[in-house]
Amino acid sequence: MKEILVSLGEKSYPIYIGENVLKSVDLFSKVLNTTQVLVITNTTVEKLYAKLLLDTLNQYDPELYVIEDGESYKSLDVINDIITQLLQRRFSRNCIIIALGGGVVGDISGFAAACYQRGVGYIQVPTTLLAQVDSSVGGKTAVNHALGKNMIGAFHQPLAVVSDTTVLSTLPDRELVAGLAEIIKYGLIRDYDFFCWLESNINKLLARDNLALQEAIERSCINKAIIVAEDEKEKGLRALLNFGHTFGHAIETGLAYKDWLHGEAVGLGMFMAAEMSHRQGWLDRESLKRIESILSKVQLPLVLPEKMLDTDMRDLMSVDKKATDKGLRLVLLKEIGRALVTSEYEEQYLSQTLNHFREAAR
Amino acid sequence: MKEILVSLGEKSYPIYIGENVLKSVDLFSKVLNTTQVLVITNTTVEKLYAKLLLDTLNQYDPELYVIEDGESYKSLDVINDIITQLLQRRFSRNCIIIALGGGVVGDISGFAAACYQRGVGYIQVPTTLLAQVDSSVGGKTAVNHALGKNMIGAFHQPLAVVSDTTVLSTLPDRELVAGLAEIIKYGLIRDYDFFCWLESNINKLLARDNLALQEAIERSCINKAIIVAEDEKEKGLRALLNFGHTFGHAIETGLAYKDWLHGEAVGLGMFMAAEMSHRQGWLDRESLKRIESILSKVQLPLVLPEKMLDTDMRDLMSVDKKATDKGLRLVLLKEIGRALVTSEYEEQYLSQTLNHFREAAR
Repeated sequence: MKEILVSLGEKSYPIYIGENVLKSVDLFSKVLNTTQVLVITNTTVEKLYAKLLLDTLNQYDPELYVIEDGESYKSLDVINDIITQLLQRRFSRNCIIIALGGGVVGDISGFAAACYQRGVGYIQVPTTLLAQVDSSVGGKTAVNHALGKNMIGAFHQPLAVVSDTTVLSTLPDRELVAGLAEIIKYGLIRDYDFFCWLESNINKLLARDNLALQEAIERSCINKAIIVAEDEKEKGLRALLNFGHTFGHAIETGLAYKDWLHGEAVGLGMFMAAEMSHRQGWLDRESLKRIESILSKVQLPLVLPEKMLDTDMRDLMSVDKKATDKGLRLVLLKEIGRALVTSEYEEQYLSQTLNHFREAAR
Repeated sequence: MKEILVSLGEKSYPIYIGENVLKSVDLFSKVLNTTQVLVITNTTVEKLYAKLLLDTLNQYDPELYVIEDGESYKSLDVINDIITQLLQRRFSRNCIIIALGGGVVGDISGFAAACYQRGVGYIQVPTTLLAQVDSSVGGKTAVNHALGKNMIGAFHQPLAVVSDTTVLSTLPDRELVAGLAEIIKYGLIRDYDFFCWLESNINKLLARDNLALQEAIERSCINKAIIVAEDEKEKGLRALLNFGHTFGHAIETGLAYKDWLHGEAVGLGMFMAAEMSHRQGWLDRESLKRIESILSKVQLPLVLPEKMLDTDMRDLMSVDKKATDKGLRLVLLKEIGRALVTSEYEEQYLSQTLNHFREAAR
């Protein structure tokens, strides 16, 4: 088992990564100092892993709350319902919530924990590759608003992250690929060596080689932990993690959060950001080709969905959180392994990039 | 003008107290580093002071959002609507919300600021005595849930508090009295000298003598600032501020947040907690009489509402946030100026107290 510490003073916490860690009550006992435990999961993960986790936590007599599966349940209504459950069970400020599932379950559970009685503890137990390398680490929690993704949320750090790589065996292929997109992101924004390692090991990862997955998750989490420790509340550096996300969120919004997975939208978003970085004269052609190559090897979609042809993507992008009163900030690449956050780019290159991808989709 | 600093490291902020500070754009300019400003108020305060504040802030071209007046609007629905407004105006993470109103407006606006895009800045401009001495200071924000008051919220410190004592001239008498309840609280829990000053100056305060009000507000805010600086997130000491509140919240819940003001419920709650402290053998009879005397001088209700006769108040109290898995914690008095938070009391004295007040109300 691997252990990484996210250093945030008194809010520091461990990430545990390994096979069958879901069966280890000792790991959970390190932070569970209460008898009031609510496990939140969704209908899909419930069938696969809820019993396993409840058995592990048997001595805590945990309660279970199951959400419907899907991004559309990431809403204030579901938050309200979770809080109803907590109040009906008379759970106090000392209760602990456990999020068993992917990014949606983690974001909802984390935000419920952030606002219930102004903040209770929670543990992330991510069951998708994407959640294990990204959303479970760093304390970002949120639900969606009709006018924008993740617009209602909080920074609320978990007490621990428990990532069982065994559960990845049941992950659908598309979700594996979506997770690989976020893994590739760490190489692109700040870790050239890791990007090269990924180029060499991409087939092992696609074949779900457990040791390769553990290494990819560990190296991703180390990168994320360093960034989060330096900039918990995204006042600067942390914005690098949004590489591909401003384009990606616009795609997700254009599709009304349907059809595409978050990681797929981010995958194409990264490609679009790389393309724009090249047009801007920063990223060289060879690097752009390497990026296109690894993204297509993992079979991420690299063409906009037809449905988006009539959508004004520029308009959707400016609703993004990265928009400031000084204009839209984007994360762009100087080279592989070196990203920057900037609103100092030529607007024409953004238009050209959007046009290029719109034309390619016709 | 008086200025008090709430010391919370990089989250420190000033409280300005004085006549006509609402007209001072310089005070606001110290923290308004954006052109995206939303002033939130309610229908009552809008008529009285919205134009005044908007004129002061003219150079920032602020937007205005008006909530209906009343505790029942302190809900997730209103939060969702405020966030709709912010998104429709394309307000970024650099926007600033200004809460112009009493505790309800402050709590809602603060929670909207806490969750919009995971946290934006806000300024408290309290217009009731209660908000000036209590709810505007310390960063507690929340909305109500059908099953309990303030159950959904966040700790989110404001950028500044601007308390204009001139506006207290239009405050209804009942609201003035409700504010005095919280002022008396500071004397009771940790400031015997202030309690004695209040006994001597209570008539001036009831006559709305502006200098006396300024002094009472300043001394209250100093007491609160010291407590908040030591224990921002209510892990210990800060719970003292809930003196009278566990009884008070049960009264408010029993009345479905109608009929009584928060400060009135807290006033009776403090008297009930004092009565129980006396039964427990802690607070002496003479002190209990002094407390009863000052509370009745300001004409706070000291008898339970008839509507509550059939309500199980003990049951409502255990839903309170101060309930832990170890039992219900209460704030009780050892003597005037010295309170403690404890679950180590005799349950019988709590029952006797509740019975005593139920009998008195028949």
